[in-house]
Amino acid sequence: MAKIAVLGYGVVGSGTVEVFYKSKENLEKKAGEPLDIKYILDVREFPDSPYADKFVKDFDVILNDPEVSVVSEVIGGIDPAYGFVRSALMAGKSVVTSNKELVAVKGAELLKIAKEKNVNFFFEASVGGGIPIIKPIHACLEANEIDEIAGILNGTTNFILTKMIRDGMGFEEALKIAQELGYAERNPAADVEGTDACRKICILASLAFGKHVYPESVHTEGITKVTLQDVEYIDSCDSKIKLIGCARREDSGEISIGVFPAVIRNESQLAGVNDVFNAILVRGDATGDVVFYGKGAGKLPTASAVVSDIVSAVKHSDTSRSLTWSDSEQSFIRPFEKFTCAHYIRLSSDNIKAAESEVAALFGEVEYLSSKNRPENELAFITKVIPENDAQNACEKLSQSAKIMGRLRVLDY
Amino acid sequence: MAKIAVLGYGVVGSGTVEVFYKSKENLEKKAGEPLDIKYILDVREFPDSPYADKFVKDFDVILNDPEVSVVSEVIGGIDPAYGFVRSALMAGKSVVTSNKELVAVKGAELLKIAKEKNVNFFFEASVGGGIPIIKPIHACLEANEIDEIAGILNGTTNFILTKMIRDGMGFEEALKIAQELGYAERNPAADVEGTDACRKICILASLAFGKHVYPESVHTEGITKVTLQDVEYIDSCDSKIKLIGCARREDSGEISIGVFPAVIRNESQLAGVNDVFNAILVRGDATGDVVFYGKGAGKLPTASAVVSDIVSAVKHSDTSRSLTWSDSEQSFIRPFEKFTCAHYIRLSSDNIKAAESEVAALFGEVEYLSSKNRPENELAFITKVIPENDAQNACEKLSQSAKIMGRLRVLDY
Repeated sequence: MAKIAVLGYGVVGSGTVEVFYKSKENLEKKAGEPLDIKYILDVREFPDSPYADKFVKDFDVILNDPEVSVVSEVIGGIDPAYGFVRSALMAGKSVVTSNKELVAVKGAELLKIAKEKNVNFFFEASVGGGIPIIKPIHACLEANEIDEIAGILNGTTNFILTKMIRDGMGFEEALKIAQELGYAERNPAADVEGTDACRKICILASLAFGKHVYPESVHTEGITKVTLQDVEYIDSCDSKIKLIGCARREDSGEISIGVFPAVIRNESQLAGVNDVFNAILVRGDATGDVVFYGKGAGKLPTASAVVSDIVSAVKHSDTSRSLTWSDSEQSFIRPFEKFTCAHYIRLSSDNIKAAESEVAALFGEVEYLSSKNRPENELAFITKVIPENDAQNACEKLSQSAKIMGRLRVLDY
Repeated sequence: MAKIAVLGYGVVGSGTVEVFYKSKENLEKKAGEPLDIKYILDVREFPDSPYADKFVKDFDVILNDPEVSVVSEVIGGIDPAYGFVRSALMAGKSVVTSNKELVAVKGAELLKIAKEKNVNFFFEASVGGGIPIIKPIHACLEANEIDEIAGILNGTTNFILTKMIRDGMGFEEALKIAQELGYAERNPAADVEGTDACRKICILASLAFGKHVYPESVHTEGITKVTLQDVEYIDSCDSKIKLIGCARREDSGEISIGVFPAVIRNESQLAGVNDVFNAILVRGDATGDVVFYGKGAGKLPTASAVVSDIVSAVKHSDTSRSLTWSDSEQSFIRPFEKFTCAHYIRLSSDNIKAAESEVAALFGEVEYLSSKNRPENELAFITKVIPENDAQNACEKLSQSAKIMGRLRVLDY
């Protein structure tokens, strides 16, 4: 009999308890032994809950109960989650978590403790909600060298962009609808500024490349500057704007990594990912491109990933698994100014002829885009693949005689 | 040190050896111990191979060598693969295979032997080539009740349909190109008649629903009757024709299952799967729809799945895993005549007015489709969701006064 503690009875926590009891019989078959949730930790009171007798307010009750072998942390954030998780691992309990911030910031340290204590630290739910991605990368694609990983990792921003693309709605209006529908927080910064996607690409890159990538090493841009004008031009070249987190192994062995709104061709599997859905593309040297698609958030999808990890932790309770990466100086992260891709640039100028000449001088041949609402004093074009630095310098020069209205990176997935 | 034997040095076998040695160091880290391929079984001679010293022609050498703990069967077909796999399992060796026919026909029996002998029988490569699907369903989605599973499971037919849809090419011409490119066999029956897709949906359904589904229980149609006229009408209603294998849990607990060319709306994640790519959609009660996409065949993708299973078999060498399903009478398979979906029907008639009245009488309200090349004596329409039986009966009645030119089922994924 394995006894489990659930830390936090918010959306994911209550979902975890719900999914656990709904599928208990099947889970026990998979785990090979009876399972039960012994404690639920929350500071609030839930006197009417059918699980009322399981609630505790003091984490030490859980920590000091040798019967509890698996702790499920679904509180979110660093504090107090980090302290709880660390103590649980130190006490020889396995931990599963949906907490992307915790894994992105403290993953290497927690994995190291788990290894030393011969217990598990699993975090399937931290990326892609209910989409299986952590375990498949770790335990299905290990015969591959992963060259690149890229994803639509945040459902809120994807919902907003979908509204802009499909319905021609402005950013602010689309954000408001996302808030009304409960997809976006009242303070939407973590979503729209790319912070959430950044944490997720950090976790994926750390897993794929074996060294911890910290959020502060990642060039991160959100979608607040994406305009309907850009959406329209991009539509005219059979592409879509998506907030992409991507990480790429360079020939030098360095990792290029970033989060930004990017232009994706319509043929790409990522372009058809709409609304709150997420998708993650993994480019392996043997498999080629593999894509995982599904609901990236939500109570039951996320809970189902947490519960799956609980079963894995019970099944492999006597062995520290090989899911791990090492801590690292961030010197293997390639400076983002060297990131290479094509660029979409939109500018306005009183002298379009002169601007065209300057574009030719700075970028060589470019692909000009049309748009049915193109003002006469506007140009939009896509450059060849160039380093970030070159694109920035060229834009600076251009902005002496023209106004840069928009710039987006063009990715090839 | 775990010693491995590879049975068969064809495309997948040589790929397995190649991928294994390329990623050996990483695989050993994952497995937690040194690994090596000790034998390669093939009736042919490979004197110039760098692995020449590993080749044997007599399976008994492998069977009787207690050092060999994992056997990788990549011969394909039932005979002699079945005998080899059975003997290996009986001798207490784990087996991994890419052989979909073997798993679809003998899976329940082989899983039972594996369980009795406390060894593993893994078959990730048997469905979807390099796409992780077996392990994710088994070990990531276990907190879900799977309601439905559907996929584009055969790359050859998807390539042919893509050519028909994109380039307006006829079936025969597209097949010829597929053969020239090596995507289709000289005898393409197993692909174009749906046999290959049928084996794969059997494996997926057995895994998802826990009882062996045998190929002969599955209503199977290929793509040979799909015409360019149908492609054009379907295009006009923002949909695509795809060869789909699907299995659905009915409220009665029965399983509906079939393989046939189906109409899929363009918004569906399955509609954008082109060329030789495969995709599998899993509809879980907690996760909602999750889709796995990638190359469904090919030397290196398939080999990478085989090698991943080898590592899993080594890692879990001392425990029979919970990946299993039970043998079964096929009485839980719902007769296909009860399969419910909407139907696309195309007919020609000398009296279109009369035909329209009869369609209304038989099907009630239908959605008529246009096509830029529609002959005046032709009608194409989509019915409401009805049982297969009703669709068939109505078509029989219709065919007394009109000619049924095409019928396709319309699926909602």
